[in-house]
Amino acid sequence: MKKPTIKLLADKLNLSVGTVSKALNDSHEISAVTKKRVLEMAARLNYMLNPYASSIKGGKSKTIGVVIPDFNNSYFSRALSGMEAIAQEKGYHLLIYLTHDDFLSEQSILKNFQSGRVDGVIMSVASEITHSDHVRELQEKGIPVVFFDRICEDIETAKITTDDFESGYKATQHLIECGCKKIALLAISKSLSISNARMEGYKKALSDNNIKFKISDIIFCSNDSATNNVILKKTLATKNRPDGIIATVEELITNVYVTCNKLKLSIPDDVKVISFTNLETVSILNPSLTTITQPAYEMGKRAASALFRALSIPGLNLNDESIILPSSLIIRNSTIKNSTQP
Amino acid sequence: MKKPTIKLLADKLNLSVGTVSKALNDSHEISAVTKKRVLEMAARLNYMLNPYASSIKGGKSKTIGVVIPDFNNSYFSRALSGMEAIAQEKGYHLLIYLTHDDFLSEQSILKNFQSGRVDGVIMSVASEITHSDHVRELQEKGIPVVFFDRICEDIETAKITTDDFESGYKATQHLIECGCKKIALLAISKSLSISNARMEGYKKALSDNNIKFKISDIIFCSNDSATNNVILKKTLATKNRPDGIIATVEELITNVYVTCNKLKLSIPDDVKVISFTNLETVSILNPSLTTITQPAYEMGKRAASALFRALSIPGLNLNDESIILPSSLIIRNSTIKNSTQP
Repeated sequence: MKKPTIKLLADKLNLSVGTVSKALNDSHEISAVTKKRVLEMAARLNYMLNPYASSIKGGKSKTIGVVIPDFNNSYFSRALSGMEAIAQEKGYHLLIYLTHDDFLSEQSILKNFQSGRVDGVIMSVASEITHSDHVRELQEKGIPVVFFDRICEDIETAKITTDDFESGYKATQHLIECGCKKIALLAISKSLSISNARMEGYKKALSDNNIKFKISDIIFCSNDSATNNVILKKTLATKNRPDGIIATVEELITNVYVTCNKLKLSIPDDVKVISFTNLETVSILNPSLTTITQPAYEMGKRAASALFRALSIPGLNLNDESIILPSSLIIRNSTIKNSTQP
Repeated sequence: MKKPTIKLLADKLNLSVGTVSKALNDSHEISAVTKKRVLEMAARLNYMLNPYASSIKGGKSKTIGVVIPDFNNSYFSRALSGMEAIAQEKGYHLLIYLTHDDFLSEQSILKNFQSGRVDGVIMSVASEITHSDHVRELQEKGIPVVFFDRICEDIETAKITTDDFESGYKATQHLIECGCKKIALLAISKSLSISNARMEGYKKALSDNNIKFKISDIIFCSNDSATNNVILKKTLATKNRPDGIIATVEELITNVYVTCNKLKLSIPDDVKVISFTNLETVSILNPSLTTITQPAYEMGKRAASALFRALSIPGLNLNDESIILPSSLIIRNSTIKNSTQP
């Protein structure tokens, strides 16, 4: 069979090549009815756009760049599924980039986007981000950027986040109500928006309960599991060890459990543990883990929807698309009060 | 060693540079016999096309399409990290597509690739795949396809797999040695290459131990967690219930633990459990889970390397890049023999 051309499409529809081309490129000059006719005929004839050819002409790559720290995290994988659901509806593809939490890598990825490879960007910033010039530069090239979860505070755009301050407060308050007197907060970044909000919530709950905040109770961990085991062993082997732990990232859960196990500390009798996570297996851990769980899938959908609104409505004020969704505290056995004590 | 040039290729073959160049670019002016001679010599000399020049000439997108069933699986997320490591080295981007295990969706994604959006494809097929015409069509358009983990047996190309037959055998043999008499195998597909190989290994181990294989001991589960709880409850609530379970996919782990818990069946005393998985939390489950663990990251790297060889050496026989990597049996508490019995 002869490969269908745009000329053939135009002939079949009794339209000019220019009109068909504009319709295929989703031009505002063409009516919705005509666009529908053209797309239906294109589908019937199995006509394929060369995505990069059309991207040169119309400036649309039909591709969204997604920039995240990592895949190996239940939050990001679920959020991606949410974005993918919306992108599929719109006929867009996701081009996914991992920064591995490296700021230089994040900068280089955004630089690359300036060439027009993507129509818009959804991102969650690297944990050691020091400024946001790379995001601003991209916006200045007319490429919209939407943040989810880990944001740049000083960039004007849609920010899809959860109530991190309230979640930090809720987690801390729960541990205090379970009898904890010395609560350690585990974090992996000193500059990340979500870490700071969770920490502020933690401090406020301590203060509301007349517990003095000590900077030494904030434990900074790394991206390396072996290093984290050393840090946690040092924290938990001391006489004045914490009796409650809040992990602000799920990557630390296995470290905390393994270290308590090695030191023969019982969870929850000696140390109560709570973590931010979307992992499914938390209910079958030994003991089952109390969690703060973010609506990850919903956040991914909202972030993608905001970006598509920006792409279809030129000049839209993306700030107005920002939303803060609530996380849930789900209580399980790792924070049960005095489980085996009389 | 001197880097082979097109001149060297031409000299060795006693052909003109023009003819060699046309052959490498798959020109219709050159006979199939000559093309074959040129490509074989190019492969022998490890001749590489200048990727930049060929990108201008051949319309290369510098993008690899990766087609996988889902993100929410520790195997795929790790394999993707492996691919990403290689792609980054080569200056390529990964464009990631999810099939959600739907064959129609997989077909439509591959159809879309025919337009030249990607230079090559790495894929793990949907579980309910019924034929492989969509893959063959893509190969015929000159776009190389490499399989990892879930493959199409009848397609000639590089297949990066693990020793699924041996792993199925090893898991079954281990349960038999722990005293299991009735072992159920949980699967999610009747047509998937890896499921079938794991099942054949299971059957062989039963037969080698003079245990009769019963088709009713193969339990087919779905992609829906609530449905799986019903299926497992039905399986485990009967008098003649299994005393050993092999989950061929990690998505079923939580279902198995939760169902045993509800039915007050102890793991490992009443039911011993083993699962194929790369989840980090298996060591802190209640009880810790015995696993068959695939070298996921390494498999992702190998799959990407094979594809880049195909892209740089025209005519390379991709079959020769196939490799079977070994999985590991890691024994933990879920298969301990008579843990609380005298």
